[in-house]
Amino acid sequence: MEGFIMTREALKLVTIGGGSSYTPELIEGYIKRRDQLPIKEIWLVDIPAGEEKLNIVGAMAKRMVKAAGLDWQIHLTLDRQAALKDADFVSTQFRVGRLPARIKDERIPNYYGLIGQETNGAGGIFKAFRTVPVILDIVHDMQTLCPNAWLINFTNPSGMITEAIKTYGHWDKVIGLCNVPVMAMLSEPELIGKTLDDLTYKFAGIDHFHWHRVWDNTGQEVTMQIIDKLFGDDDAGLPTNIFDVPFFKDQLANMKMIPCGYHRYYYRQEEMLKHGLEEYANPEGTRAQQVTRIEEELFDLYKDPNLDYKPKQLAERGGAHYSDAACEAIASIYQDKKTHMVVSTLNQGSVPDLPSDHVVEVSAQVGAAGAVPMAFGHFQPAERGWIQLMKNMELVIVEAAATGNYGLALQAFTMNPLIPAGATAKHVLDEMLVAHQKYLPQFATKIKELNAAGLTVQDPIAAELTEKPALA
Amino acid sequence: MEGFIMTREALKLVTIGGGSSYTPELIEGYIKRRDQLPIKEIWLVDIPAGEEKLNIVGAMAKRMVKAAGLDWQIHLTLDRQAALKDADFVSTQFRVGRLPARIKDERIPNYYGLIGQETNGAGGIFKAFRTVPVILDIVHDMQTLCPNAWLINFTNPSGMITEAIKTYGHWDKVIGLCNVPVMAMLSEPELIGKTLDDLTYKFAGIDHFHWHRVWDNTGQEVTMQIIDKLFGDDDAGLPTNIFDVPFFKDQLANMKMIPCGYHRYYYRQEEMLKHGLEEYANPEGTRAQQVTRIEEELFDLYKDPNLDYKPKQLAERGGAHYSDAACEAIASIYQDKKTHMVVSTLNQGSVPDLPSDHVVEVSAQVGAAGAVPMAFGHFQPAERGWIQLMKNMELVIVEAAATGNYGLALQAFTMNPLIPAGATAKHVLDEMLVAHQKYLPQFATKIKELNAAGLTVQDPIAAELTEKPALA
Amino acid sequence: MEGFIMTREALKLVTIGGGSSYTPELIEGYIKRRDQLPIKEIWLVDIPAGEEKLNIVGAMAKRMVKAAGLDWQIHLTLDRQAALKDADFVSTQFRVGRLPARIKDERIPNYYGLIGQETNGAGGIFKAFRTVPVILDIVHDMQTLCPNAWLINFTNPSGMITEAIKTYGHWDKVIGLCNVPVMAMLSEPELIGKTLDDLTYKFAGIDHFHWHRVWDNTGQEVTMQIIDKLFGDDDAGLPTNIFDVPFFKDQLANMKMIPCGYHRYYYRQEEMLKHGLEEYANPEGTRAQQVTRIEEELFDLYKDPNLDYKPKQLAERGGAHYSDAACEAIASIYQDKKTHMVVSTLNQGSVPDLPSDHVVEVSAQVGAAGAVPMAFGHFQPAERGWIQLMKNMELVIVEAAATGNYGLALQAFTMNPLIPAGATAKHVLDEMLVAHQKYLPQFATKIKELNAAGLTVQDPIAAELTEKPALA
Amino acid sequence: MEGFIMTREALKLVTIGGGSSYTPELIEGYIKRRDQLPIKEIWLVDIPAGEEKLNIVGAMAKRMVKAAGLDWQIHLTLDRQAALKDADFVSTQFRVGRLPARIKDERIPNYYGLIGQETNGAGGIFKAFRTVPVILDIVHDMQTLCPNAWLINFTNPSGMITEAIKTYGHWDKVIGLCNVPVMAMLSEPELIGKTLDDLTYKFAGIDHFHWHRVWDNTGQEVTMQIIDKLFGDDDAGLPTNIFDVPFFKDQLANMKMIPCGYHRYYYRQEEMLKHGLEEYANPEGTRAQQVTRIEEELFDLYKDPNLDYKPKQLAERGGAHYSDAACEAIASIYQDKKTHMVVSTLNQGSVPDLPSDHVVEVSAQVGAAGAVPMAFGHFQPAERGWIQLMKNMELVIVEAAATGNYGLALQAFTMNPLIPAGATAKHVLDEMLVAHQKYLPQFATKIKELNAAGLTVQDPIAAELTEKPALA
Repeated sequence: MEGFIMTREALKLVTIGGGSSYTPELIEGYIKRRDQLPIKEIWLVDIPAGEEKLNIVGAMAKRMVKAAGLDWQIHLTLDRQAALKDADFVSTQFRVGRLPARIKDERIPNYYGLIGQETNGAGGIFKAFRTVPVILDIVHDMQTLCPNAWLINFTNPSGMITEAIKTYGHWDKVIGLCNVPVMAMLSEPELIGKTLDDLTYKFAGIDHFHWHRVWDNTGQEVTMQIIDKLFGDDDAGLPTNIFDVPFFKDQLANMKMIPCGYHRYYYRQEEMLKHGLEEYANPEGTRAQQVTRIEEELFDLYKDPNLDYKPKQLAERGGAHYSDAACEAIASIYQDKKTHMVVSTLNQGSVPDLPSDHVVEVSAQVGAAGAVPMAFGHFQPAERGWIQLMKNMELVIVEAAATGNYGLALQAFTMNPLIPAGATAKHVLDEMLVAHQKYLPQFATKIKELNAAGLTVQDPIAAELTEKPALA
Repeated sequence: MEGFIMTREALKLVTIGGGSSYTPELIEGYIKRRDQLPIKEIWLVDIPAGEEKLNIVGAMAKRMVKAAGLDWQIHLTLDRQAALKDADFVSTQFRVGRLPARIKDERIPNYYGLIGQETNGAGGIFKAFRTVPVILDIVHDMQTLCPNAWLINFTNPSGMITEAIKTYGHWDKVIGLCNVPVMAMLSEPELIGKTLDDLTYKFAGIDHFHWHRVWDNTGQEVTMQIIDKLFGDDDAGLPTNIFDVPFFKDQLANMKMIPCGYHRYYYRQEEMLKHGLEEYANPEGTRAQQVTRIEEELFDLYKDPNLDYKPKQLAERGGAHYSDAACEAIASIYQDKKTHMVVSTLNQGSVPDLPSDHVVEVSAQVGAAGAVPMAFGHFQPAERGWIQLMKNMELVIVEAAATGNYGLALQAFTMNPLIPAGATAKHVLDEMLVAHQKYLPQFATKIKELNAAGLTVQDPIAAELTEKPALA
Repeated sequence: MEGFIMTREALKLVTIGGGSSYTPELIEGYIKRRDQLPIKEIWLVDIPAGEEKLNIVGAMAKRMVKAAGLDWQIHLTLDRQAALKDADFVSTQFRVGRLPARIKDERIPNYYGLIGQETNGAGGIFKAFRTVPVILDIVHDMQTLCPNAWLINFTNPSGMITEAIKTYGHWDKVIGLCNVPVMAMLSEPELIGKTLDDLTYKFAGIDHFHWHRVWDNTGQEVTMQIIDKLFGDDDAGLPTNIFDVPFFKDQLANMKMIPCGYHRYYYRQEEMLKHGLEEYANPEGTRAQQVTRIEEELFDLYKDPNLDYKPKQLAERGGAHYSDAACEAIASIYQDKKTHMVVSTLNQGSVPDLPSDHVVEVSAQVGAAGAVPMAFGHFQPAERGWIQLMKNMELVIVEAAATGNYGLALQAFTMNPLIPAGATAKHVLDEMLVAHQKYLPQFATKIKELNAAGLTVQDPIAAELTEKPALA
Repeated sequence: MEGFIMTREALKLVTIGGGSSYTPELIEGYIKRRDQLPIKEIWLVDIPAGEEKLNIVGAMAKRMVKAAGLDWQIHLTLDRQAALKDADFVSTQFRVGRLPARIKDERIPNYYGLIGQETNGAGGIFKAFRTVPVILDIVHDMQTLCPNAWLINFTNPSGMITEAIKTYGHWDKVIGLCNVPVMAMLSEPELIGKTLDDLTYKFAGIDHFHWHRVWDNTGQEVTMQIIDKLFGDDDAGLPTNIFDVPFFKDQLANMKMIPCGYHRYYYRQEEMLKHGLEEYANPEGTRAQQVTRIEEELFDLYKDPNLDYKPKQLAERGGAHYSDAACEAIASIYQDKKTHMVVSTLNQGSVPDLPSDHVVEVSAQVGAAGAVPMAFGHFQPAERGWIQLMKNMELVIVEAAATGNYGLALQAFTMNPLIPAGATAKHVLDEMLVAHQKYLPQFATKIKELNAAGLTVQDPIAAELTEKPALA
């Protein structure tokens, strides 16, 4: 791996999806680390459909930087290649198809009585299908425009996107991030009267499906103590976008590890489905619809020419801390801080129950040499079975996304524990192909066939959001 | 491993569960192999509750042997230890709790809208829970009474029972059998105009969850040809106890292997559930209730003092060919025939995606040295994910069955792809513990607690069959 | 894998290295299997330097076929591509550089006090270096001329050549053969009063470095019995080309497996070296020099126009049974005999201590579908350490041979347990590069450098055999 | 794992082998970390034969502590159990049989023309044979006397001793140390104009047989730069006890990793042997004989009642930095410093080419939770072959040491790359069993047999040092 050019003391940072509502957190994260990062330019890139938001949030970013008394240049652009040219760090936070696509990812499965969620179930599969072609395109640009840059990915489903970048993009200098471990490490220590520095954390698994164990500074394992606090009276540490149904105590006692919030979809599938369908039936709608309104409110705030700091309302979004984690990863690499972070990176044996040459999410030391994963050792059979299923499903999804193989897409739907296999599942697959066709060039052949057969989206809201069949 | 004493030319064969309706197939199997097996004694063992059936089928067995002009001694007994003393081969075909237990395995999950089946889902887990303690008790007897005997297990769930025998019973001379591969190899060749001898079969997976590939005698792989025939117009090769919903062609085309019939529960979960619930709602009842009637008719036939051959009606039972496979295994070992059979045996690397020191179901060469598995090589990610989940689930179930750990039982229910995790799943677990308490001494503590809390079986038929709480 | 075209009832068999003294055994092997193989043509191919021998042995082959009353056409040719065109089976028994190269493989190491042997130590490495480019060229021809043919390799070092064919030639329809297991199975059974049919053999390892275990037809393991017979008074089962120093009983008792004859080089390195150096010092010379004389005598015999059968003197050559094994492999594939053979083939998990995607030598079922390896399970640590070293060394040698990477060649020399690492080892490597330069185009750059530095072969006999530096 | 009792603010530290000449370095190490370690008592334990040295070095330790103005209690004792009672940290630096045993480990192999060295070859095997029974005895005491203590082992062969502690002692709270990585990290950075903090080190392998790679703080890999400096003109970073023969550049270029100093024995076996035999022939004698004199001089220095600091002469011993590393490990655990150290610990996947449940030497984060190894990923085939051989040899040696199985001991001798297998090797094994019999109770049966056969030690110096056969 070629080294990062440290002599470069004027950093060019690029963010793809710069018009995101999270951008203020990112800017705040950079400002917090002003002493660690000699930033010269920040390029916020978006696509034409996101131009308005880019301008709003970009203006605010400029105000934030100015208020901080910094001379950083903020560039707002729709020209991705211009932005990538000679970049030092590229971070990705884009959403292909934006929130309307997420609404479809939720509502179409819901319509058929299935869990609809952004990174799990049918919705998660389709988010990967839409995102993989774009990220591979970005990596392709980077090969020539900024071959030594680090790619910090926090576009979801972050683990699968990182897998695609490594396996199909053949790009090694990538770190995938997630806010779930960050939130756990922010909230758990105080539950047991400790600070984060007092504890040793070991995470292992894959993105949105990992467990962790914790030890205190006397060497005592405190995992079960945290479990008792977490899943006793209160439920600290859960992202706000996850409905809060408790785990079974008997299961946790056997597991002896702390599951992540997304495990609720798998360990309490029934209740998560029920809750999702209730939201679906409500006028307020599913999470994506709620988020759409939160976003609108956020952008209304951002328009305020006097606002020059990250508003507290942003924390209500489920993705809080993602951007800050990205800034921390960038600072850790640039300053060779050898920070403990939980990242999606090449396994290399750290999770020995999974293939060593694919991506896992694991505790790692992050520094100039990238992420060095810490060995977790073997899982017990129950967790081993789950994680082997889920990682292989990821590989199937990513391959289907990269190749457009319909049979593989169907295999992914069949494997997914949140989708009962059968005719309905296959129909949901087909309907979502039609619904998202604008962003699925790799599946063009199958989609043409489905369009020809007259398949249409049934959920009225999703139907309305379905753009004109580009592939018909 | 100590060798089988070939000098012994007067074989003592013992069958645990000798009162089974399948016994005539077993006897027929022995008679067919009269030239290969120098049988002196056949001991049919059952428990007091099975004595009547034992006497009926035992009398018929004697008539069959007599009609064949053989001088074999048929012993009918309730004294298992007397039977095991100096046995050469012990085969097991018992059903703990008999058909009433199976009715509960089916109807209790059905009552809650879940798949109820003998070897899959909640029912399969409970069949393992009931059977493991008994098989370990049998193995314990064998350690002293017949330490050189071979144990041929075809009690279901055959793979998990074989796993328990190896891992918790520490008994190496065991072969687990299943009729599913037998039926595939009986029915498939003619679909493509071949005989079994013309073909090379390679099976791999675990019991009731395996795939196979086939080559013809020119070296051409004919897997896809067989798939086209099997899942085109007709559906040859399916056990009569599995509802016949077709697999998806696109999925099979990607898989490039032939799934087994039980894969329908996982690849067409929706339809299998729907069909099961229809049966549940019908007056004829679930499969176990239907089988109860078939069994009664069979035993009525068996009572006929003139019947001295296996009646064709026996083939209607789902377990056809199981007993014949057992006879073939015994003959292959005794005669060192080095026959190709598909058996549950120690992996040893043959299925490299699974732990090498646990049981798999795989093509093997069966002879005096036992089963030598044939290496299958790696699966593709989709099948690898499935099989790793399923094998680990087996390990969890078998450990829960051997230890009575309730948390592990709950982990097994949570992992099972046919049981949506959540409160209902946990309730079904609890209700089945209560329903089967007579046969679950290992779970006594938890069951007492459930009884004390007043938990009762809700399905009326299952409730009626629930025997007096021995553990209350 | 495309199937072999069975409808083809007029087989074209091709042998590369057809002028070998072993050809009569091959022809005899075909004649023995006349009922199994509908042979139409046999093409014996050689290079110009081998033309004389080809004509002699080819004439004899014709006499043998005629004496057997068969109408097979025997073609003698130097045109490999003409021969390969539409071939059904291609077997390889060539020796690049013929016996003079082998003399150098033996005498140059001997000169420096190292073991000199055809398939082990420095000589074995160089035999691979010379052969890999040629076999890859043959496979390249086959891709277009006979893409459905089976390649039966018994050119030594057979395992490494098979590895090269698979890994660098990407040719799947290959079986590598060795006579060592054949001879073990021919000689051992009678030592314990059995026939081969009475026994179950399980071999595992790599070519010329494998162990086996044996069971009798009562299921009793007889491995230690055979060891007692083999390494007691007499030493049956040893190829005539291996000096007969006994293994240590204490080591065998711990190993509980039967080593192969070539293990003597590793388990009794001291004595094998001493013996080799004695031969080196003798006027009769090393094995290759002895073989040269045996070969001359054989060809004198072959010239006899009345000789129309394989002369018994051929058995004195160390490679006896190689050719017959090749015939048996061909017949097993063509007739789908599902024969037990020990072959070099893709591991696929059968030897779980070695990579599953590389070649091992293992018991396999050989039929129309090729070789299906039988799972051996794990080795104990001592043998596991040895075999992991040796297989990795093979991978290093084959990669060096395929790429001409000098550093890798040096790594191979350093790893080799028969070559003490250091300046002498490196010098032997360099001198052998010079000595064999005519056949080592891949190492041309390094050889030019060595020639320029004036490096010359020191052993007088080897020096005399060194052909004019083509690469100087 | 039970946690270390942090509330304990008065640490009891125990050192087995307290009479060692290295003790001043240990005491200095503690004094340096006085602010990190609230030491109350230091117990130096030795055996009667070491009492005189214990008193000398113990008196000096007291002077050092006093000179530092500390009130720590220094206990000198021959009563190991009294010392271990309620210990917090136990470190081990004993040498079973003291330097006379090491002289025999070197001279007996040398007499037969073999490499004689403390931790490699025949000598290293015998050092393990003598030490394993003692360390298992210590661990056995710890189970009851100080079940929560950490064991910091730097008794050589450190990796094998740590393996024995884990595998046969079933003691988890152990860290094995070695000074070789410490010295590399002390000397290499300045070679390339960096400090240690600037670099990221990744080590992997086993004790005295590991490689490392290095990256600088710009993310650039600097491994080859360090290699150029190390093996160019000068040879920084080599322990003083290793003869300095350069590695081959071509091999290093292919390896792309930095070998450790002990690799010279394997990569330059010829020269290391030659050098060893020269020393053997010299009046000054082998390294152990030289060390004996250095030790005497050191103890003469230590007797000086005015000496109250570690004398610089101690650095001449090969083991410099071992004791400091032990102090650092203790401080890292106690203060939860999460320091990067290279330690022998359970693999857990960090070196995926080796078994995950055995000990490796690897970069780790050391803190209150013990050592968390950092994943290194796969080796290339050449290094993979070496390390798999060497780790398996370690397992064979440790099992032989723990069980006294002579066949296994012979297997270990046969596997060892520094011992040419054969009659001489076996004779050296036997002669060393006789020579060290006083310390080899586990091999008593075999030794009696050898004594009865009159086997005697041939090297005169070793013969003189051989104590009266306790086992005759």
